[in-house]
Amino acid sequence: MATQGQVITCKAAVAYEPNKPLVIEDVQVAPPQAGEVRIKILYTALCHTDAYTWSGKDPEGLFPCILGHEAAGIVESVGEGVTEVQAGDHVIPCYQAECRECKFCKSGKTNLCGKVRSATGVGIMMNDRKSRFSVNGKPIYHFMGTSTFSQYTVVHDVSVAKIDPTAPLDKVCLLGCGVPTGLGAVWNTAKVEPGSNVAIFGLGTVGLAVAEGAKTAGASRIIGIDIDSKKYETAKKFGVNEFVNPKDHDKPIQEVIVDLTDGGVDYSFECIGNVSVMRAALECCHKGWGTSVIVGVAASGQEISTRPFQLVTGRVWKGTAFGGFKSRTQVPWLVEKYMNKEIKVDEYITHNLTLGEINKAFDLLHEGTCLRCVLDTSK
Amino acid sequence: MATQGQVITCKAAVAYEPNKPLVIEDVQVAPPQAGEVRIKILYTALCHTDAYTWSGKDPEGLFPCILGHEAAGIVESVGEGVTEVQAGDHVIPCYQAECRECKFCKSGKTNLCGKVRSATGVGIMMNDRKSRFSVNGKPIYHFMGTSTFSQYTVVHDVSVAKIDPTAPLDKVCLLGCGVPTGLGAVWNTAKVEPGSNVAIFGLGTVGLAVAEGAKTAGASRIIGIDIDSKKYETAKKFGVNEFVNPKDHDKPIQEVIVDLTDGGVDYSFECIGNVSVMRAALECCHKGWGTSVIVGVAASGQEISTRPFQLVTGRVWKGTAFGGFKSRTQVPWLVEKYMNKEIKVDEYITHNLTLGEINKAFDLLHEGTCLRCVLDTSK
Repeated sequence: MATQGQVITCKAAVAYEPNKPLVIEDVQVAPPQAGEVRIKILYTALCHTDAYTWSGKDPEGLFPCILGHEAAGIVESVGEGVTEVQAGDHVIPCYQAECRECKFCKSGKTNLCGKVRSATGVGIMMNDRKSRFSVNGKPIYHFMGTSTFSQYTVVHDVSVAKIDPTAPLDKVCLLGCGVPTGLGAVWNTAKVEPGSNVAIFGLGTVGLAVAEGAKTAGASRIIGIDIDSKKYETAKKFGVNEFVNPKDHDKPIQEVIVDLTDGGVDYSFECIGNVSVMRAALECCHKGWGTSVIVGVAASGQEISTRPFQLVTGRVWKGTAFGGFKSRTQVPWLVEKYMNKEIKVDEYITHNLTLGEINKAFDLLHEGTCLRCVLDTSK
Repeated sequence: MATQGQVITCKAAVAYEPNKPLVIEDVQVAPPQAGEVRIKILYTALCHTDAYTWSGKDPEGLFPCILGHEAAGIVESVGEGVTEVQAGDHVIPCYQAECRECKFCKSGKTNLCGKVRSATGVGIMMNDRKSRFSVNGKPIYHFMGTSTFSQYTVVHDVSVAKIDPTAPLDKVCLLGCGVPTGLGAVWNTAKVEPGSNVAIFGLGTVGLAVAEGAKTAGASRIIGIDIDSKKYETAKKFGVNEFVNPKDHDKPIQEVIVDLTDGGVDYSFECIGNVSVMRAALECCHKGWGTSVIVGVAASGQEISTRPFQLVTGRVWKGTAFGGFKSRTQVPWLVEKYMNKEIKVDEYITHNLTLGEINKAFDLLHEGTCLRCVLDTSK
């Protein structure tokens, strides 16, 4: 390509300060160094983790930065030593890397990967411990190793999943975060069996993906719990077949669910990021075997608690990151499942806007009627 | 037997008030009713749970009562409908019942049993919701459905494990609580694999049984953690091959263990009942897969806490009761393992006293040099 080896100037949404509107800027994107991939991002969605860091409540948030981690695009060029993707490949950037060489990747027990975390956790690239983004010579931090709110981004090669080139990028961009997180929480982390009772706290995108995962796993009762009763109608389409609004009850929600299910559910999922709800999710599980999975991300510094008796009497407390999916290996498989109509994706997209309208998209995210808003980054 | 159907008057240690010396009394033990078994207790050991309830800190503790739950004896007579044991059978009373009929027993997922808990939890028998113990006509509460600090006791038939009549009762009485709890925490709850790294917090009887379980499961590093360094010598005999005293370090113990094990252990076990240590035990587990099992019993009202990030990044928090063993089915199997010299029992017995010396035995339990003290109830 004509741009290979050159700095590319393109549009990106820069977060200069916490909680201040993002600014669409001309950003310089340096060429990929050894082990790096420069991607032309075509579509990016917004996720609550972007909003959390943007809010300034994330103590690890660095500014100025380019947010965004749920996207799809085409490889523009690759750095030295990159063999698994090449220019023209259709890809999904993965905030959860998979190097296949580290202690974590080789353990066979986790999807976490340790290879590039020391760089992605502090907004830079491994090779020279610097950023590839700048505005008029001033560096802009990366975010989650992806920074997809930009027409071009640079990521580590261990963070790129090559996908079927016929897959619609404006849809499968969602397979970069929320939908796999929910599906995998059920399939990989909880391993829900047919006939199980399931409680889902929070019916946003992740909660709905949990419902879909539970339905395909053969769960019989799929109880959605949300303080917004309007969400039940949509949730039914994803598999939720009972609904409880905690506001309709005087008792703690865990007691309501225990009473409703003759002792508690087999599996519960917290998809909000609220530590009080995490406790309720554990305590609504059945004594002897109920397993609760924390899927939501709590604000920094907050803690979960419960009486140890809850665990001694057989409940299990777990969590999940990216649903336990190995990103480079399994994101392409999820894309195939979508292409074969085995999992939903389109149904989560409630809004389509452009990169230039990103601040409006963040407003939508907070309104509650938006599941996923996909941005066309060409405009 | 001549005593069948009659009230038996025998010696028992009665706890009249919290924290006051037990009183050796002539106690009347009523005959077993339908579904009940009267057992002549020959040997009983003391456990920290007895001491906890005796201390008055257990809000569910009822007085006056007859404590004790780790014992062995011979069936004196059985009530109507009891078919699985008969007079003369050698048995171990089991505080964790196993009815094989309830939702829990049939689940295949837990060793908990729901059948008699509503009675054993409040110191009475199911049949008439009354006690079988009295002193001069005044009822004395049962404890944990076992009450073994007595020459005779009455228990539900679902709480009796029939064992090999050639097994020495002064030894296998220990298979009623502490030793199975530790072994089972490893074998059933954590399912430790060969080559694993294990951390054990607290090197009392239960902690040592965890070490033995870990050794037989093929764990490579078995790290004992205790504030009394003298315990290491004994612990070596049970499989502990590294020792850490938290008092020797300025850093929190979880950091010490993480540093020592290149990221944390595969499995940890809390065998004390201290909620701060429970947190440390979780947090010393390896990111991605480390599993922590709560074995100790915390004081009432206390809570465990941690940052949810600990679970989201792959650690699992569990607990165990009676090590996950199905009591009636597996206690006889444990007795066989002991008879075949596959598990230790004798090595946990540091003291032998008589029922009449029970207050001295409680003093020993608090001194720290005592693992298990077995009382001969005939004296």
